[in-house]
Amino acid sequence: MKSKGSRFERDLIAELWKNGFAAVRVAGSGVSAFPCPDIVAGDGKKFFAFEVKMRSSLPLYVSSEEIEKLKRFSGAFGAVCLVALKLPRKKWRFFAIEDMKATPRGFCIDEEVYAMGKDMLELKGLAQLRL
Amino acid sequence: MKSKGSRFERDLIAELWKNGFAAVRVAGSGVSAFPCPDIVAGDGKKFFAFEVKMRSSLPLYVSSEEIEKLKRFSGAFGAVCLVALKLPRKKWRFFAIEDMKATPRGFCIDEEVYAMGKDMLELKGLAQLRL
Repeated sequence: MKSKGSRFERDLIAELWKNGFAAVRVAGSGVSAFPCPDIVAGDGKKFFAFEVKMRSSLPLYVSSEEIEKLKRFSGAFGAVCLVALKLPRKKWRFFAIEDMKATPRGFCIDEEVYAMGKDMLELKGLAQLRL
Repeated sequence: MKSKGSRFERDLIAELWKNGFAAVRVAGSGVSAFPCPDIVAGDGKKFFAFEVKMRSSLPLYVSSEEIEKLKRFSGAFGAVCLVALKLPRKKWRFFAIEDMKATPRGFCIDEEVYAMGKDMLELKGLAQLRL
């Protein structure tokens, strides 16, 4: 599971570079004493912190603790934070925290939220987006 | 050697957080297909990419290839690139590439360059520095 996660993260890293972002995988993102995301990326103007998830199907729940850490890192670093989700045979989609549904089980991406996710092109055109 | 390197990197990560920077260690910085530094840090306004080195004594040589990768990443990401050097019983010091001496063996930090290195306080006050 760990190596599968790394493989998906490397796939997203390659996609980001292809689209003009310099991107790095964060070491020990699950175990660090400090809040940290899975991937950090920038293009000289905009900076992103990604929590990376892959699932075989929806819905996806992300715990409030994970979201809280992502927000703390992003606030301190100066990055926009996003959840990056890979579903089978789909391209990567990106979700702002405020677009996810707050539930007792955590922040949720269901079919409705998924349909509103941003794709890589929209990420590049972030200046035009409300994020 | 690898784990010792990681320990020094984690030490610098902790120092950076203590001084108001959100910082992450980069996974696979030596093996990635894309250019990447050892540490990326930001404080909402300034962004840094660090190549991290520890040595028992001077001089330190950093290969032109490593410096080239560091510059390529930093240019694409939008970060100031620095070599972070830890000597025994000394605090971290930071060096801009242009302050290092270009030699046939690579970029060099000798006693003279070391004496001009920035410390953590100067990193925080970067706005006042020529970097």
